[in-house]
Amino acid sequence: MSDASTPCPFDFDAAAQVLEARFGARFTTASGVRAHHAQDEGWHPPAAPDGVLFAASTADVAEAVRICARFNVPVIPYGTGSAMEGSINAVHGGLTIDLSAMNSILSVNPSDMDCTVQAGCTRSILNTHLRDTGLGFPVDPGADATLGGMAATRASGTMTLRYGSMRDNVIGLEVILADGTIVQTGGRARKSSSGYDLTKLFVGSEGTLGIITALTLRLHPLPEHILALRAVFDDSGAAIGFVVLLMQLGYPVARAEFMDELAIEAANRYEKLDYELRPTIFLELHSTTSPLDEAREAILDSLKEYRARSVHLAETAEQRSRIWKTRHNAAHAEPLLRPGTRAMVTDVCVPLSHLAACITETQQDLRATGLCAPIVGHVGDGNFHLAILIDPDSPSEIAEAERLHARLVQRALDYGGTISGEHGIGLGKRQFLRAEHGTGLDVMGRIKQALDPHGIMNPGKIFLPNGKHGTVPASTRAD
Amino acid sequence: MSDASTPCPFDFDAAAQVLEARFGARFTTASGVRAHHAQDEGWHPPAAPDGVLFAASTADVAEAVRICARFNVPVIPYGTGSAMEGSINAVHGGLTIDLSAMNSILSVNPSDMDCTVQAGCTRSILNTHLRDTGLGFPVDPGADATLGGMAATRASGTMTLRYGSMRDNVIGLEVILADGTIVQTGGRARKSSSGYDLTKLFVGSEGTLGIITALTLRLHPLPEHILALRAVFDDSGAAIGFVVLLMQLGYPVARAEFMDELAIEAANRYEKLDYELRPTIFLELHSTTSPLDEAREAILDSLKEYRARSVHLAETAEQRSRIWKTRHNAAHAEPLLRPGTRAMVTDVCVPLSHLAACITETQQDLRATGLCAPIVGHVGDGNFHLAILIDPDSPSEIAEAERLHARLVQRALDYGGTISGEHGIGLGKRQFLRAEHGTGLDVMGRIKQALDPHGIMNPGKIFLPNGKHGTVPASTRAD
Repeated sequence: MSDASTPCPFDFDAAAQVLEARFGARFTTASGVRAHHAQDEGWHPPAAPDGVLFAASTADVAEAVRICARFNVPVIPYGTGSAMEGSINAVHGGLTIDLSAMNSILSVNPSDMDCTVQAGCTRSILNTHLRDTGLGFPVDPGADATLGGMAATRASGTMTLRYGSMRDNVIGLEVILADGTIVQTGGRARKSSSGYDLTKLFVGSEGTLGIITALTLRLHPLPEHILALRAVFDDSGAAIGFVVLLMQLGYPVARAEFMDELAIEAANRYEKLDYELRPTIFLELHSTTSPLDEAREAILDSLKEYRARSVHLAETAEQRSRIWKTRHNAAHAEPLLRPGTRAMVTDVCVPLSHLAACITETQQDLRATGLCAPIVGHVGDGNFHLAILIDPDSPSEIAEAERLHARLVQRALDYGGTISGEHGIGLGKRQFLRAEHGTGLDVMGRIKQALDPHGIMNPGKIFLPNGKHGTVPASTRAD
Repeated sequence: MSDASTPCPFDFDAAAQVLEARFGARFTTASGVRAHHAQDEGWHPPAAPDGVLFAASTADVAEAVRICARFNVPVIPYGTGSAMEGSINAVHGGLTIDLSAMNSILSVNPSDMDCTVQAGCTRSILNTHLRDTGLGFPVDPGADATLGGMAATRASGTMTLRYGSMRDNVIGLEVILADGTIVQTGGRARKSSSGYDLTKLFVGSEGTLGIITALTLRLHPLPEHILALRAVFDDSGAAIGFVVLLMQLGYPVARAEFMDELAIEAANRYEKLDYELRPTIFLELHSTTSPLDEAREAILDSLKEYRARSVHLAETAEQRSRIWKTRHNAAHAEPLLRPGTRAMVTDVCVPLSHLAACITETQQDLRATGLCAPIVGHVGDGNFHLAILIDPDSPSEIAEAERLHARLVQRALDYGGTISGEHGIGLGKRQFLRAEHGTGLDVMGRIKQALDPHGIMNPGKIFLPNGKHGTVPASTRAD
């Protein structure tokens, strides 16, 4: 039996002939197009596929996968290329299927608060379409990613606090399996106890079990009442303590975003602001039915208790959009701190009670190494991101950053957290998967083997080839 | 290769010798104990296991499964026996592992709002333990089930509207696989995009992939403000329309329970009440931070619009407990409508917009057959239950009920719903699984085969033996 974690040798030219005959100009091996599909927004080296298919329908994807299966050709799904961990880099070559033209909204059911879209539909296309319904799709990872890509990565971002991540908001999928079979999972009922939860299995599987071609999503009423503010703190511990308190008290917090001094400095440069260079929380509460006046008073009181240095309420839609623009631009702003560098971006997520300690220790670690890495985070979830700004021509700096990264991941695990909060595993976190999942990684491997026995679905992602994940560390065995 | 849906022949006596040597008196083949473990609370015929092990630890369960694996002996997990679809009936014999003594609370983390418990811990044990923390575990399927059993069935019940089902509230598991391996899934971080979501795969797998021995659960702040009422309507359509409206407006509805005329009649008999024999909604709203005064006025207005005949507010904790006792006792009350009968209990779940039509048509169908079946439901979820009261000695009545059941399930599917909202598949819904999942059922079968190649984990459940699920209906193939 072949090992699904290692793709077989394949003859791309033979597959290309069949693909060209079937798809004409929508299939291409042009080097420019291949190069455009070689890399996401992360720090992993580009790896171009042997060809790209611009799919127009579920049937296209199913047939392309069937053709690839016949020739053992790897298949990589592609949306907008906004992933962070190399999930779409074609490290074993093969065919990249670009789903960005499959961006139709297939149905919207306002009374059931759900919709079905093609995988290439982005969240901004969907939210623009929903404008007059009073409903919205709130999962917001920053980038205007495709919803299929967001599902494949189990994305979250701001707003997860109140509305959940893709795990919670994808209620059904259409998926093409490794043999080209079309599978419909889940459905439109709000709950079900009918068989295995295949929807949740494919969400977060990063294209390694199948290609998502359509999604049924939960929608949410737009908030009637919004309270937004920016608060500046003396130290990270106070900033995070304040957010944790709000979460524990059950306030309807929709977003609670942290930016450290460095991230604020980058924002100041990028947006010509003069924000105080201190740990800052960007907060937003949503309510559909009750005004937030009482919450506002209680929150202002709590801010005093946590010794916030200054509090800036965003009273108008324009002021709110100003707040969130700063947060969303963080990824673009950060490299300005060290021009000429590339950002090695990573994220972890820990239980809330350990978040302040985990961030503080990471900042100490950063100071000890001398590396420059602004920290931003969805701190109400316990999730934070580092953008380690490294000189791409300095092997020693890269090695130092990789050691820091490994310590960060281990620190998150030591605090009972996870090695990836929302960026997936892709290429960048594979070596840490055994440490988090122990024997669970073998279960994942058996599922991969069962659904993709020849290893053609996005090979090289999640799993290290040839069982290099190692054995189970003794500490993960219970009893 | 053996077929995981059909268990192999096995020599129980050989396994029993090893089990007895290892576990002493905690392993028994006494007929009384076996009979006690033969049946859940549903309508499926009893099927006793060959022996029962009272497990005291994860290590016990792992070792018992290893022994059973060696002799191909089926293994059935047992909590309190409160399942409804025959999930714990030992239809192929084998060893039932009773986890009810494994009821410890392993840890509670108030600041992270999570806890870890052994699988045999019931929800009342947990909530009693949590009493002074201001937190609670709100998933409430009615019965005081074990949390392991609730996870295995993907249970929900009242409160799912606001707090989610077991799918949403189980964030980590300890599971014993078919070879005795101990796996830890998920963790305490509020979100993760690290590998396949094994937690959600085991939740709802009904013991067919592994035995849950411990769970990490999300806790919720107890509500500060509660609004509860009972409202009586002229017809089911208005009652359900009212609930759907509240959901769409985003009110913090925690429970929205429906009882039809027959269910109210049963409650009147069981509890010596004199409630009006009309479709009735039992409603509860929760808020942790804002008073519900405005919601109360708006809801009373909506009740007028939906022509509620009478509204009874439950202002005190005692009045609220009175309301919910009536709803919880429904299952015990219903047989009083036709003494001497047994209830064939079933449930389906449809998108909210089709709920009123689905219930109305089901009531018409019931009238046409002459069968007596009160309807209760978690209607804010689109979920409702039928208790078809049948004479256990009348084959024709049983056959009529089975035909009605099949039509109910098909109706739910036609409305885009699911064949089981919260009772699982067990024995009772297996024949409908292909109609709901199409090719997805084959994916489930491949996962079952990969994780339980010899078919020893709760055989006969979810899957029909020997591939009798049939082929994929043409209509489920897209394009």
